[in-house]
Amino acid sequence: MSIAVIYGSTRQNGNTEQLTEKVIKGLDIEKIFLRDFTIQPIEDLRHTEAGFVDVDDDYNKLVERMMKHDTFIFATPIYWYSMSGTMKNFIDRWSQTMRDEKFPDFKKQLGKKKAYVIAVGGDNPSIKGLPLIQQFNYIFEFMGISFDGYVLGKAKRPGDISEDAVAISAAEELNKKIK
Amino acid sequence: MSIAVIYGSTRQNGNTEQLTEKVIKGLDIEKIFLRDFTIQPIEDLRHTEAGFVDVDDDYNKLVERMMKHDTFIFATPIYWYSMSGTMKNFIDRWSQTMRDEKFPDFKKQLGKKKAYVIAVGGDNPSIKGLPLIQQFNYIFEFMGISFDGYVLGKAKRPGDISEDAVAISAAEELNKKIK
Amino acid sequence: MSIAVIYGSTRQNGNTEQLTEKVIKGLDIEKIFLRDFTIQPIEDLRHTEAGFVDVDDDYNKLVERMMKHDTFIFATPIYWYSMSGTMKNFIDRWSQTMRDEKFPDFKKQLGKKKAYVIAVGGDNPSIKGLPLIQQFNYIFEFMGISFDGYVLGKAKRPGDISEDAVAISAAEELNKKIK
Amino acid sequence: MSIAVIYGSTRQNGNTEQLTEKVIKGLDIEKIFLRDFTIQPIEDLRHTEAGFVDVDDDYNKLVERMMKHDTFIFATPIYWYSMSGTMKNFIDRWSQTMRDEKFPDFKKQLGKKKAYVIAVGGDNPSIKGLPLIQQFNYIFEFMGISFDGYVLGKAKRPGDISEDAVAISAAEELNKKIK
Repeated sequence: MSIAVIYGSTRQNGNTEQLTEKVIKGLDIEKIFLRDFTIQPIEDLRHTEAGFVDVDDDYNKLVERMMKHDTFIFATPIYWYSMSGTMKNFIDRWSQTMRDEKFPDFKKQLGKKKAYVIAVGGDNPSIKGLPLIQQFNYIFEFMGISFDGYVLGKAKRPGDISEDAVAISAAEELNKKIK
Repeated sequence: MSIAVIYGSTRQNGNTEQLTEKVIKGLDIEKIFLRDFTIQPIEDLRHTEAGFVDVDDDYNKLVERMMKHDTFIFATPIYWYSMSGTMKNFIDRWSQTMRDEKFPDFKKQLGKKKAYVIAVGGDNPSIKGLPLIQQFNYIFEFMGISFDGYVLGKAKRPGDISEDAVAISAAEELNKKIK
Repeated sequence: MSIAVIYGSTRQNGNTEQLTEKVIKGLDIEKIFLRDFTIQPIEDLRHTEAGFVDVDDDYNKLVERMMKHDTFIFATPIYWYSMSGTMKNFIDRWSQTMRDEKFPDFKKQLGKKKAYVIAVGGDNPSIKGLPLIQQFNYIFEFMGISFDGYVLGKAKRPGDISEDAVAISAAEELNKKIK
Repeated sequence: MSIAVIYGSTRQNGNTEQLTEKVIKGLDIEKIFLRDFTIQPIEDLRHTEAGFVDVDDDYNKLVERMMKHDTFIFATPIYWYSMSGTMKNFIDRWSQTMRDEKFPDFKKQLGKKKAYVIAVGGDNPSIKGLPLIQQFNYIFEFMGISFDGYVLGKAKRPGDISEDAVAISAAEELNKKIK
């Protein structure tokens, strides 16, 4: 098993990363920090004659890195009750990749992957983070990705996550499960 | 009453726009097409000493245009079971605006606004679009915006929305209600 | 097409029934008022050696009446953000019927049915009624029932539903669709 | 602190009870097994002149027992993606108690309580149990009850819950938190 962690946060070493560290401790991991790359929003050209056109940004190479692994961890702060716009733009582009001959069988390959979600928010995430989990569930379901677990953590200020004992424990338990 | 429609779609005159036309027929509207502008993803600097720094893009002037109105219609295609990444980046930046002295009382002013959501998707939107509605509900609730209605439409190919009689009728009913 | 309406309300001619009248106008309908019958809560005996035992109440004959039809409308007031306990007890018992040799192929037969949901509540039903819709969706999905539409109406006092123009219109639209 | 556990299950010592044992270990508890009592479905008489009439069943004394405590744990198997009909009937009746002069200030008193939810299901409860959690959240929010945590466990056959290490760990963590 090899694991890609896709980070949607914009702060370095923030609460989301700290909680994710508990999940990935001792595991073979490739970290992909989306904030370090340029990802254009998708332009929906599905219905034009020419179809999608290549975009000159970092997206394709990020997908290549991700697809080398069989397990994904999506780690995102909860911005406005969903994943960060940065991560959303990354996932939106999957619609293009599904039609990109440079990535044949993209959906079919995703159908063999497993995924986990780590999300940290400040406003009652164990309740108000549930639509985000339901959204990820539909995304994974569409792609055939097996959704094997999630942790919702609560934190407002830097370091707060260490006080969410329930989330820390759930993250450690997920670590055991993944191992 | 004056109304801003904030469009999250990337295709011109797509299904979302067509359904929105039914809602806004005969109303005084300012249309804001997010796709025509550059909106950087938020960089979370809430916890740095200096705080947020000005971003050289079109976001601020879009907020200014929006805030002139007392009613907002968020019109977005459903991309991966949520709003488009373009719209998400726009909303993510509100976290910065809440701390921007160029927009004093941003949250307080939003607390006097009303909002509607129009969302169109291809994959069972009346069920799989519900997390999106719940997410918008939490966004509006946080800001104190009154969430006065929504329409979920179904469409895959250009023009399909005209076949969703239930959504068309709901849009027309919303039009009467707004008037 | 023939239709069974299963009513979960306890008041006669209440808002839920009034809204449902818009949906069923001119249609061939059998009305099943659960409140007029005795339905015991399920006793989970799946894992005992003997299995379920026959229950001396009205449940079985209600299922028989329901199963004669190919389309179901579940019409329930929203009590505490879900269907009424009366309707819940009725559905809970399906777990027994799935193992009852008097109803061979119960699940298989349900897999050929269509269903609609009409639900009326007083506390922001277009948002707080969504978990109920998601719950019905999972019920129908499990059984293979096609979930073809729903209407959420708002009403507190008797007759209030007539003021929810959006719900009335949606109910009338559903009527056209079913026809 | 004193705690009432309200059990919605119908099987003795089933998975829900076993998981709840982890949560309540070493705590001062009163156990209320709803299955041992008769609870009539509510009859909605809010809008009649005479109002609700006394019901000759065990409900009132169960409420009295519950209200002696400051913390509630609702422990229910997930039947058809929600609480059992037995528990739903119990909660439905709260609408009557809110208008019952034998329970003055019922809602006000509930507003000082805390609650937890333990729910166990067989069909992907960490996703398909979320509408149930959202429903409980709305119930508690309406009453002003503080919703302090929940555990969703997975189990089909008797004893299966012991294999859900993530749920067991979450239950143990909740036990520490409550203490």
